Amino acid sequence: MFDEGLIDSATGLTRVEPDHLIQMMAPAFDPNQKSRAIEQGQMLAKGLPAGPGAASGRIALTSEHAVEMAKKGPVLLVRAETSPEDIAGLHAAVGIVTARGGMTSHAAVVARGMGKPCVVGAGDLDVDEERILVKADGRVLKEGDEIAIDGSTGLVLGTALETRESPVLAAMLESAATEDSDVVAFRHVLSWADEQRRMRVKANADTPHDARVARALGGEGIGLCRTEHMFFEEDRIGWMRQVILGDAAQRQRALEHLLPVQQADFEGILAAMDGLPVTIRLLDPPLHEFLPREARAVRSVAQRMGIDPEEVTAKATALSEANPMLGHRGCRLGITMPDLYEMQVTAIVRAAIARTGQGGNPRPEIMVPLVGTGTEMAGLRARIDAVMARELTAADAEVQIPVGTMIEVPRAALCADQIAVHAEFFSFGTNDLTQMAFGFSRDDIGTFLPEYLEQGILAFDPFARIDEDGVGKLVQIAVERGRRARPTLQIGVCGEHGGDPSSVRFFERCRLDSVSCSPYRVPIARLASARAVLGL
Amino acid sequence: MFDEGLIDSATGLTRVEPDHLIQMMAPAFDPNQKSRAIEQGQMLAKGLPAGPGAASGRIALTSEHAVEMAKKGPVLLVRAETSPEDIAGLHAAVGIVTARGGMTSHAAVVARGMGKPCVVGAGDLDVDEERILVKADGRVLKEGDEIAIDGSTGLVLGTALETRESPVLAAMLESAATEDSDVVAFRHVLSWADEQRRMRVKANADTPHDARVARALGGEGIGLCRTEHMFFEEDRIGWMRQVILGDAAQRQRALEHLLPVQQADFEGILAAMDGLPVTIRLLDPPLHEFLPREARAVRSVAQRMGIDPEEVTAKATALSEANPMLGHRGCRLGITMPDLYEMQVTAIVRAAIARTGQGGNPRPEIMVPLVGTGTEMAGLRARIDAVMARELTAADAEVQIPVGTMIEVPRAALCADQIAVHAEFFSFGTNDLTQMAFGFSRDDIGTFLPEYLEQGILAFDPFARIDEDGVGKLVQIAVERGRRARPTLQIGVCGEHGGDPSSVRFFERCRLDSVSCSPYRVPIARLASARAVLGL
Repeated sequence: MFDEGLIDSATGLTRVEPDHLIQMMAPAFDPNQKSRAIEQGQMLAKGLPAGPGAASGRIALTSEHAVEMAKKGPVLLVRAETSPEDIAGLHAAVGIVTARGGMTSHAAVVARGMGKPCVVGAGDLDVDEERILVKADGRVLKEGDEIAIDGSTGLVLGTALETRESPVLAAMLESAATEDSDVVAFRHVLSWADEQRRMRVKANADTPHDARVARALGGEGIGLCRTEHMFFEEDRIGWMRQVILGDAAQRQRALEHLLPVQQADFEGILAAMDGLPVTIRLLDPPLHEFLPREARAVRSVAQRMGIDPEEVTAKATALSEANPMLGHRGCRLGITMPDLYEMQVTAIVRAAIARTGQGGNPRPEIMVPLVGTGTEMAGLRARIDAVMARELTAADAEVQIPVGTMIEVPRAALCADQIAVHAEFFSFGTNDLTQMAFGFSRDDIGTFLPEYLEQGILAFDPFARIDEDGVGKLVQIAVERGRRARPTLQIGVCGEHGGDPSSVRFFERCRLDSVSCSPYRVPIARLASARAVLGL
Repeated sequence: MFDEGLIDSATGLTRVEPDHLIQMMAPAFDPNQKSRAIEQGQMLAKGLPAGPGAASGRIALTSEHAVEMAKKGPVLLVRAETSPEDIAGLHAAVGIVTARGGMTSHAAVVARGMGKPCVVGAGDLDVDEERILVKADGRVLKEGDEIAIDGSTGLVLGTALETRESPVLAAMLESAATEDSDVVAFRHVLSWADEQRRMRVKANADTPHDARVARALGGEGIGLCRTEHMFFEEDRIGWMRQVILGDAAQRQRALEHLLPVQQADFEGILAAMDGLPVTIRLLDPPLHEFLPREARAVRSVAQRMGIDPEEVTAKATALSEANPMLGHRGCRLGITMPDLYEMQVTAIVRAAIARTGQGGNPRPEIMVPLVGTGTEMAGLRARIDAVMARELTAADAEVQIPVGTMIEVPRAALCADQIAVHAEFFSFGTNDLTQMAFGFSRDDIGTFLPEYLEQGILAFDPFARIDEDGVGKLVQIAVERGRRARPTLQIGVCGEHGGDPSSVRFFERCRLDSVSCSPYRVPIARLASARAVLGL
């Protein structure tokens, strides 16, 4: 109708829900294979479509078995219903089926949170820990049998089917010219959205591959490039451990080894996002995450460093924390171990200089995590500026690198004016902000969140959709105080809420400048932010 | 001068600092013994008085040794200076001496936080991990030698001395008539304070003994009566474990056993505080804290319950959490395990009825911990009210029992209006509020807080003194929104800040109704709240 001039883009956007795009991008079964399976009487049940996407695998009837069986191949966890005790099985499975429960049942909520295909309320099945009885025909399935589920439609099929990437997603990723009507419609909707939206949409990406995916799906930069995974790779974790365990000389040597590797990481990402902003977050997790726990790994580290294995274990124990979420991490590391952040900043500046030398247009930004006070930001900003000046002078180069901070600690929101004086941008880390505002550890809420949802104490999972009443107030306070102290302050969000349409609507009302979400959610966020402008 | 009519009480209060009362109440050496020791040349050094009080014990020169030696008797940790790695030794020692460092050095800050006598900057000593060299006379002390320190004056003596309770404190506790000038002056100051102050001063106390101490020192009720310790006692922990591990029938039986025991606990405390309000907090800690870890205890629990020891361990593991501070605790337990809170409420009501029958005037109040949403409070309030009504009807009794909540989760402060609708009082749990607002786990900050203080990133330890800029804003928001929704709302504070003069000044500015602190801090809080009214 748009092509025929019958509706304009704003009207068109009223007719497309973000859910439509999610469905179009989800993996699906080969339609021919699926029809054939149904014709052959393999449709076991039709339940509620609780988590979009298709999945195939062997049946596991308990969580313990799911964990075991998943080591050998894809597993679908099939239960009468799930409870918090099934959490390990839910993690291990590629998809979930329950005989009972609705769209807000434990299995449904957890599966959507994990982005896994899920069918709930498949009442045609009678499920216990021994077998699945198909009520219609009395057929019995055992653990290990192959089935397939389509979480977009609620279908459960009694055979394995090949899943394939959505053709829409494939065409988008390849920027392929095509007349496939779905692809054309998808692109149309997004071009309407881009006409209407005010907020920029960026992606959370740590690798050149993810950056390319984000860019192909319309991402206008990287809003959150985490740096921790870079230290876990095989060739680097040893050096990182030396930084933590070594004496001053060993530590220095390890950082010198890590510097060019980090620089190469950043060059790759800046190349993939050439011309677009890339916000790089300095190291965030607590140090004990980098230390080995298993005896073999401990021995190998000890040998490499010429120390006693017991020393390694003792250090790991000394670094372990009662509540690591609230411990010695983020900018607290940058303050107590300044050379680590200095190495990272050096690598960022050198990468930008190198990219410029290659004719590129690198636009890195440096983001400090877990800031809670203006003094933290002031101190770190001064050190970061000094390193940048040193590197730029040495190379006789000019690169503008804005420096900003995450707003993820409640105190940072309350004191945003004091922090904004030293920060060119804010990015709300709404995951951590939600954890601390509610006092909910995301790793631990599985034991009570489903009951909270069922009893109506919470109307939704605040990690999936922003809690406007509480966490949202902190966002509003920070925006208001931050902009008052620095009118040019750029403000975005890089928690997972950045890809949730309801949350995007709230961020539009807060007048944020951008949202950043996982690469595959970028089209959703583009549509959602346009609809938000239109008050939809 | 007051007695002579030369000054009035307000003027008198300008001349007494809370520190004076702290000094007067701290344990001290027998003055004769101390003089004799000095005469005999036992004064080894004079450093800075970094933590008030006297202590005697054997020298430990490393933290590891302090931990070991403390098993056999009191130990004083003596170091050139301390660092976060000494934390176990600081915990184990009864007092601390450092040769270097000032009033805000690591040792000084940690010792004051722990309430331990401490002398820092004792430059007359040369300390290493082998021995202490007394510079003045070349005398050498070894690990295991006995010394004594007076953290109120900075003295380090080369002999053991008996410490004794302050005579002022002893007279107060015994309500003894005496003409001892210190005692008379102490009482005078407190009577001046009581004339001037606006806020009520209560104590945090869980036992009849602590309640009596609080009352003797002028406490006007109990602002926080924790109930968790009651479940750890020898005769009860087994039943508590059965509540957690048992099936429905075992659980029910265990709660029936715990009910009269809890009732007796409450009767004892209500008797000690007869006529004064006693705010009882329902169970707060996560359940895994009640489960055994050691093999022997696990076997004994398993045997008692007739289950496999592995089941006990598996349950303990399943209940353990990544961040217990932010986990399944507080009112989250009350919502997912309603029978536990119902038992506690039943015990409180029955205790009040029993006390009334004995001619007493019980004034219990019920406080729900860790509330973050209005819906949590609404749901729990309805259940609490139902239990109270059932018990009062059954006994044909009338007792008024106000129901309120802690404000310790940042979200609770932000949504205080929604919570106040269902709560008759608020009590700020400023310890947890500080943990969550800063994202600081109190158990884990030892590794960076000293450096934060040294670098001036924090001007003070926010667990010792309230952070007005951040945590304080949450307090102000909650007071404003809470009173708007319920003008009669009673608001107090029951974190350790309730006994800190600077924080008390802030709470006076916020117009709180009361502060509650540890029993021995009650006189300090009485003086501080009077001085706050006077703007001192």
